[in-house]
Amino acid sequence: MRKSFGAKPFMYPMPVLIIATYDENGVPNAMNAAWGSAADINRIAIYVSAGHKTMKNILAGSDFTVSMATAATAAAADYVGIVSGNKVENKIEKCAWHCTKSEKVNAPLIDELPMALECRMVSYDTESELLIGEIVDVVADESVITDGSIDPRKLDPICYDPVNHDYLRLGEKVANAFEDGKKLI
Amino acid sequence: MRKSFGAKPFMYPMPVLIIATYDENGVPNAMNAAWGSAADINRIAIYVSAGHKTMKNILAGSDFTVSMATAATAAAADYVGIVSGNKVENKIEKCAWHCTKSEKVNAPLIDELPMALECRMVSYDTESELLIGEIVDVVADESVITDGSIDPRKLDPICYDPVNHDYLRLGEKVANAFEDGKKLI
Repeated sequence: MRKSFGAKPFMYPMPVLIIATYDENGVPNAMNAAWGSAADINRIAIYVSAGHKTMKNILAGSDFTVSMATAATAAAADYVGIVSGNKVENKIEKCAWHCTKSEKVNAPLIDELPMALECRMVSYDTESELLIGEIVDVVADESVITDGSIDPRKLDPICYDPVNHDYLRLGEKVANAFEDGKKLI
Repeated sequence: MRKSFGAKPFMYPMPVLIIATYDENGVPNAMNAAWGSAADINRIAIYVSAGHKTMKNILAGSDFTVSMATAATAAAADYVGIVSGNKVENKIEKCAWHCTKSEKVNAPLIDELPMALECRMVSYDTESELLIGEIVDVVADESVITDGSIDPRKLDPICYDPVNHDYLRLGEKVANAFEDGKKLI
């Protein structure tokens, strides 16, 4: 028997994406976004309201990085989601986060977030508020790499639970993609 | 020290969305999609190639449901991702999945997948291959509900690891969204 929950944007998992930009004075800002996904082999799609400081920064010429929030940074990731960069100029400082300018795009990388996508805006649709970015590069700190690949157990990224408003970490592997399905062929 | 991985559609977590539709003869089909997110309070965005049987069914008039793949259904979820509905007509049967027609939209609910979004196409852009759906309802089986809410520990949804091609389950809670960030204010 199924129970109805109405028209809600519920999905499991949802990511906790930290979008970082520079304002026109070079001050870094960050926000938390759950409504994002890959959009193509080298593109990312994120729904970002036009009122966000992040979107103003991007429309004023900043590129952006998209980092994965981690279990170790969950409270700070939540903070950048609940406090607006329009009101608080030093959100990143409040998080005790440190920034290093990306070598490939005009946007800050947050030192405390070990995996990030370095992106440039392709388009922004003011009606749907869909930001499309070109993924110029994916970078990850050596501390989260095993045998040359990003290791989710070391990265320890978090997911947003939109029903219960929790952040959950990833758990163990249950199957091989592109492999375990072959047993049914 | 950060290592570069190039322009890749890497994100943690990525969902494992099972999109189910009817063809023009009422035969149910399902596919696996990782490139999707919420797009608004009552909208979902999924990038679906036009060549997929799923997209042909939707463009021919089917609505669609979007279910969360679970640890118990990981192999079948992988199977519907690697085998095309253009070639195999009875993919759902091969999964030993059973369908019940949604009461609200013209699309199948898969009995073995306890949480689903019931959706109607709003738009499909043939260039970007972005499918936008209106979320008409979210439904979940009583077996995954605790105190009236969907319980991710009971649902046991899986995530796609795009780097290592694994399916991972969700783990424990690490923080409260909209709460733990307040400690930094």
